[in-house]
Amino acid sequence: MSGRTAVIYQAGERVVAVDPADRGLAYGDGLFETMRAHRGELPWWDAHWARLALGAARLNLPLPDPEQVLDGARMLLDGDDGVFKLLLTRGAGGRGYAPPTPAVPTLVLSRHPLPPPAPEPGLNVRWCEIRLSLQPRLAGLKHCNRLEQVLARAEWSDPGVHEGLLRSVEGDAVGATAANLFVLREGRWRTPAVDRCGVAGVCRGWVLDALDVLETRLDVTDVETADAVFLCNAVRGILPVARLGTRHWADATPGHRQVTDLQARLAAAHPAFAMENL
Amino acid sequence: MSGRTAVIYQAGERVVAVDPADRGLAYGDGLFETMRAHRGELPWWDAHWARLALGAARLNLPLPDPEQVLDGARMLLDGDDGVFKLLLTRGAGGRGYAPPTPAVPTLVLSRHPLPPPAPEPGLNVRWCEIRLSLQPRLAGLKHCNRLEQVLARAEWSDPGVHEGLLRSVEGDAVGATAANLFVLREGRWRTPAVDRCGVAGVCRGWVLDALDVLETRLDVTDVETADAVFLCNAVRGILPVARLGTRHWADATPGHRQVTDLQARLAAAHPAFAMENL
Repeated sequence: MSGRTAVIYQAGERVVAVDPADRGLAYGDGLFETMRAHRGELPWWDAHWARLALGAARLNLPLPDPEQVLDGARMLLDGDDGVFKLLLTRGAGGRGYAPPTPAVPTLVLSRHPLPPPAPEPGLNVRWCEIRLSLQPRLAGLKHCNRLEQVLARAEWSDPGVHEGLLRSVEGDAVGATAANLFVLREGRWRTPAVDRCGVAGVCRGWVLDALDVLETRLDVTDVETADAVFLCNAVRGILPVARLGTRHWADATPGHRQVTDLQARLAAAHPAFAMENL
Repeated sequence: MSGRTAVIYQAGERVVAVDPADRGLAYGDGLFETMRAHRGELPWWDAHWARLALGAARLNLPLPDPEQVLDGARMLLDGDDGVFKLLLTRGAGGRGYAPPTPAVPTLVLSRHPLPPPAPEPGLNVRWCEIRLSLQPRLAGLKHCNRLEQVLARAEWSDPGVHEGLLRSVEGDAVGATAANLFVLREGRWRTPAVDRCGVAGVCRGWVLDALDVLETRLDVTDVETADAVFLCNAVRGILPVARLGTRHWADATPGHRQVTDLQARLAAAHPAFAMENL
């Protein structure tokens, strides 16, 4: 394992520190990607890069050189497993919201430990109180304005609660603080649309390709009365939900078998999620 | 003028750089205050500190030592006029939204030049396309999740347009990208409430004390057909609006005289806004 855990670039050149006038710090004016690394490689790199490019286009942020990012990832990961994070901001700017022209973006690459294994037989989740606001211009993006998620995650400290589910200000289920949400109802998988809030997760994208999924609106009852529920993200993969408040999902149902089948397909598609690596 | 323009503290100790794992950078997990300095002093310090304290309570962020902030301000300002900015973040954290406990906040103090004088006879403003989302848990605060304002300010580059007015997702007028909005209708001043979105500006607070103002909902027509309109913020004071699209406000009306009267009262209350200093 390499000793260094983060490197910083401005305009493609290594620098020793982030400028205190960075607009990432001032305004959350940036994007990030969090990737599962396997033996020093990033199996879902293409999907992460595509989402970053979409966000950069919407925020009018210049993209870094992908080869530089991949070189940085190889250096930080040094052949190991772990989590690789990319943070791209608009760089230093004057006081005030007007974006500097041209922007000289800041890129921070960092390596982090793997999360602990998913609890058996599944996650214990809760509803969060805070509601997510609706902003179509930012919906779907992995941008750095995350105070809603910070406040949501701060609602509980019980380590026996593994994730919090979020509703929008209109009451629709959106996802979890750091994962997307899928529910099985009437024989079909469903997931909230992410065109007004929420994040278009990379693992969510893989599931949409792998299953016949309806992107739709779901309310609290739709989730609580589902036949099976799972969360997913690009770091932890497919996470069956075992409990939500008073609702328990047994692990010997046809719905649960669909989830374990999906986990097996993911293990075949992305080596980090092979069962022996979880 | 002191040579240094920014100083950084962690847990009250001076440090040379912001940690690249700072949650301000990762999530916009912080607050800021932008203050008009006059001869090295901060005349509205109490109001800025009160808003910071309110925001820190809502985000569960520890406040810095106010004496340390004031010492830093005196050092940076060195007796001069200018703009003093305070940025408070939750400090470095691991990957993930869960706030570190206890948080070791980062404090960045910086000095900036005064903005150019307000244009005569008043501002030329436009409506922005992006709508502000509704989030009562963050409304009113000067928090660091400002991508909506960044996108709004990026909508125009014409230097002849001085500010952009923002509507909420429901269509209500909220304010400008970096100022609060007041309109005179039926003999009474009105300003949008800031309980669902918008910022509770420090100069706005002074105006609420100085005038008989109704905090209410305003739509686009309410603004465009007003008898007088001004914007205000703590750095630029009271800014009469002369033009909004095809609507012009003449500067010899009773409404305009109310604005100039208010400017005179502000000049008496806050020395930086005395006419000879603008």
